[in-house]
Amino acid sequence: MSKAPIRILGIDPGLRRTGWGVIACEGNRLSYLACGSVETSQRADLAMRLLAIHDGLMRVVEDFRPDEAAVENTFVNKDAGSALKLGQARGIAMLIPARAGISVAEYAPNLVKKTIVGAGHGDKTQIRMMIGVLLPKADPQTEDAADALAIAVCHAHHRTSVLLKLAAQ
Amino acid sequence: MSKAPIRILGIDPGLRRTGWGVIACEGNRLSYLACGSVETSQRADLAMRLLAIHDGLMRVVEDFRPDEAAVENTFVNKDAGSALKLGQARGIAMLIPARAGISVAEYAPNLVKKTIVGAGHGDKTQIRMMIGVLLPKADPQTEDAADALAIAVCHAHHRTSVLLKLAAQ
Repeated sequence: MSKAPIRILGIDPGLRRTGWGVIACEGNRLSYLACGSVETSQRADLAMRLLAIHDGLMRVVEDFRPDEAAVENTFVNKDAGSALKLGQARGIAMLIPARAGISVAEYAPNLVKKTIVGAGHGDKTQIRMMIGVLLPKADPQTEDAADALAIAVCHAHHRTSVLLKLAAQ
Repeated sequence: MSKAPIRILGIDPGLRRTGWGVIACEGNRLSYLACGSVETSQRADLAMRLLAIHDGLMRVVEDFRPDEAAVENTFVNKDAGSALKLGQARGIAMLIPARAGISVAEYAPNLVKKTIVGAGHGDKTQIRMMIGVLLPKADPQTEDAADALAIAVCHAHHRTSVLLKLAAQ
C-alpha cells in the first residue's frame, strides 16, 4: 500500500445545494484543503440548475485535481418526488469525477456518521464538531460542505478495502 | 415564427436503457432522422453506467446537432428507490443538451401520449403504431427509442408555446 499523499473529493449532492470538500490523506494523516457548496436558484429551470452543479463541480475537479472521489449512497427515506430530484443532482455529482477518470466510491450515511462520530446516528452538530477535531483548519460555511468533508474523511478511512473491491470487479 | 427546419432530440432516460430519437420539423412537416438507445451493464458500477449514458448521448448530440431537446417529465408512480435511479439517468439526459447550449423542454407522459394517440392513456403499442404513421421511415428497435421519438414529436407540436414560456422567464 502506497503512502504517497492522495487527494480525496467528498460530495454531498442536492439540487438546491451540493456540498464539496477536498482533503489530503498521507498514510493515516489527514489534512484539509478546501470546501464549499454549489447553490442553484429555485427559479431557474431544471436543466440550468443541473448545468450549474456540473460547472461548479468541474471547477473543483480542475482546481484541486483529486485522485479519488466519494459520494453518499443515500438511504432513501424520502418520497419518490424528492428522490427523483436528489437523483438528478446525484447523477451529475457521480458523472464529473467519473469523466475525469477518478474512481467514485459510495458510502451509506450511517457508515459516514459511524466513521466520524463513532455511532451510526450521530446528529449534524456532532459531525460538525468532529470535523473541527479531525480537520482543524476546515471552516465549512454550510452544512452541505461539512457533510462533504465527512464523506471525504469516511473514504480516507475505508478506501483500502473499497479500492480492493473495485479492482476485483 | 420561423419556418426553417429545426432538429429535435427526444430522450427517454433510464439507468438500464436510455432511448433517444432525432426528428426534423419544418413548419408542420415532420421527418425521421435517427433513433437508438444507450444500454448500460447492470454489473458495472453506477458511476461507469452514468458515464456510458453521458458518452452515448454526447455522440448523438455531436452526430446530429439538434437545435432543441425534450425529455419526459416523469410522473412519479414509482417507489423512492426507483425514482432515485431514474433521477440519476435523467440528470445526465438533461445535462448533455444544456451543456451544448440546447434548450431542454419537459413534457408529462400523459401529454406525450395525448399528442401522439389523441388520448392520455394510450398504451405502448398504440404509441408505436402512431410513430409508424407519423414518421414512416422510423424503425425503432426498442421501446425506449420509440418513446424518445414520441417525446420529440410531442415537442414538435408544442414547442411554440414552450419556447415562448422559456423566453419569458
